[in-house]
Amino acid sequence: MTTDAQILSALRSAGEGAVSGADLSQKLGISRAAIWARIEELRKLGYEIEASPHLGYRLLNDPDLLNADDLLARLGRTTVIGRDIRVFQQTNSTNDIVDKLARDGVKEGAVVFAEAQTKGRGRLGRQWISPAGKGLWFSVLLRPDLRPQEATRITIAGATALWRAIHEVAGLRADVKWPNDILMNGRKVAGILTEMNAELDHVKYVILGVGLDVNQTATDFPAELRRVATSLRVETRRPVSRAELATAILRELDRDYRRVCQGAFAEVADEWEEHCATLGQQVGINIGNRTLRGRAEALDDDGALLLRTEHGHLERVIGGDVTLEK
Amino acid sequence: MTTDAQILSALRSAGEGAVSGADLSQKLGISRAAIWARIEELRKLGYEIEASPHLGYRLLNDPDLLNADDLLARLGRTTVIGRDIRVFQQTNSTNDIVDKLARDGVKEGAVVFAEAQTKGRGRLGRQWISPAGKGLWFSVLLRPDLRPQEATRITIAGATALWRAIHEVAGLRADVKWPNDILMNGRKVAGILTEMNAELDHVKYVILGVGLDVNQTATDFPAELRRVATSLRVETRRPVSRAELATAILRELDRDYRRVCQGAFAEVADEWEEHCATLGQQVGINIGNRTLRGRAEALDDDGALLLRTEHGHLERVIGGDVTLEK
Repeated sequence: MTTDAQILSALRSAGEGAVSGADLSQKLGISRAAIWARIEELRKLGYEIEASPHLGYRLLNDPDLLNADDLLARLGRTTVIGRDIRVFQQTNSTNDIVDKLARDGVKEGAVVFAEAQTKGRGRLGRQWISPAGKGLWFSVLLRPDLRPQEATRITIAGATALWRAIHEVAGLRADVKWPNDILMNGRKVAGILTEMNAELDHVKYVILGVGLDVNQTATDFPAELRRVATSLRVETRRPVSRAELATAILRELDRDYRRVCQGAFAEVADEWEEHCATLGQQVGINIGNRTLRGRAEALDDDGALLLRTEHGHLERVIGGDVTLEK
Repeated sequence: MTTDAQILSALRSAGEGAVSGADLSQKLGISRAAIWARIEELRKLGYEIEASPHLGYRLLNDPDLLNADDLLARLGRTTVIGRDIRVFQQTNSTNDIVDKLARDGVKEGAVVFAEAQTKGRGRLGRQWISPAGKGLWFSVLLRPDLRPQEATRITIAGATALWRAIHEVAGLRADVKWPNDILMNGRKVAGILTEMNAELDHVKYVILGVGLDVNQTATDFPAELRRVATSLRVETRRPVSRAELATAILRELDRDYRRVCQGAFAEVADEWEEHCATLGQQVGINIGNRTLRGRAEALDDDGALLLRTEHGHLERVIGGDVTLEK
């Protein structure tokens, strides 16, 4: 853990109490002057740290900012996810950043957040609006031992992890909509974009991209999105700590990714199905220029949707735009 | 077509005859001095061009070198493949170069050749030896409207195109070995590496990489490869013009890619099956740490291999290392 992460971790563990400079110095193995210098830098970032001559340092606030050291401190130890966290103030697209990291041979588990994205994208090259400080826009580099057609499992695992994190931190029960949306009361609150680089029979790496609207107010949304999009703040009527939420997401994702890698995807799929409002409904799925119609029945072993068509066939669908039909 | 390509094209069309400087000047719309300057540059590259005061220019040789303008001149018009050709004297891997072009938004049909590769690779990260001037090491950027599991069709189309080009230029009938090898008399003469970048339900781009051993002599191969690898020169007992071969490959690939894109993959698969020594044989396929055994029966609609296992099941296999079993 970095020095800043250790400092924040120690301050948080102390809670209402304070941590003395001497203790920090001894624990981190650096001088008290060096501790002071780091405290000053953390203050500049927005952390309000009280310095009392006798008692030591106390963390007074929990600012809604994303800081790599802070996230590392909060997350603690995980199996894979979050072993490397980077936060950009602004970038074009975190999926693109992670793609570069992948090609540079960075290990799986690396996560890249951006406070703002200028070219955030969703499926099929659509635009994903990513305003500064309002949501969580991040991507995770994964190197699962999967075949290309099994990569859908990653999207499903991303959705279940998001569901549990949203439930834990914001107290909300979301709906998952196949293939990659998280909804609240019929409006989209998060989207997942899974991209992969693969040979024909095995995946070289997968980029799990997430866009989660956290703290927009209703008027923060452009007019054309207001009917179809929402944020956790709108749904829960209070601001949500993005750092706390990000940490929860990474921790839950670590758990679900482990399940996928250990051959327990079926459990993840079952959990996903429990939260899915689409199953059992009549749907139309637009794929390219054709539309498949039928009843959404279940997920298969790879996370594809099994659709019972009008002719009684069970059709296996991997992606597409789903609309509920009456 | 570039100026150099037009000059070479005109010289080749003239055959034994000569082309006057005045004709070239008028045809290309540049001065005779400019023509002369280009002729000088082409000579430096290795083209022997005779300049006779009265008759004009004659191309005396057909050097075994790869030159982008020359290839463009030879290829002429195609539908997609070869609309953009680049030749590097040396590169790490042409698949990597094309990957970068893809990310830069270059149109499909771009082809990159290297005279030599320092980090040529085959499937699963294996090394592909690519010595200078001895073979064809190249990659093609494609943007087919396919789902990831259909990408195998590209590998199959690559193999049939190679087969026809080798037959046309070297007069040899090769064997194709599933999934991506071209053999002659049991030894490997070419390999295909197909890599893709995809979302879950559609391919963003495919990189078709080819390594074809053309003019190595038997002793040119490292000792450990001599039993398993061969070249067209070894098999046909004479050197083969790499430029002529490259042109034929691109032309045949253009035809087969068009068939894949127009929904006629079944024809390509049928053709592939005709040249496949593996079908009808008992094979073992190593996939990761397990081995599937059975009789190789046919290709399916996506180019996967249908294997009749010992239990009578028809198993669909996408990739793996195939060994013939007694």
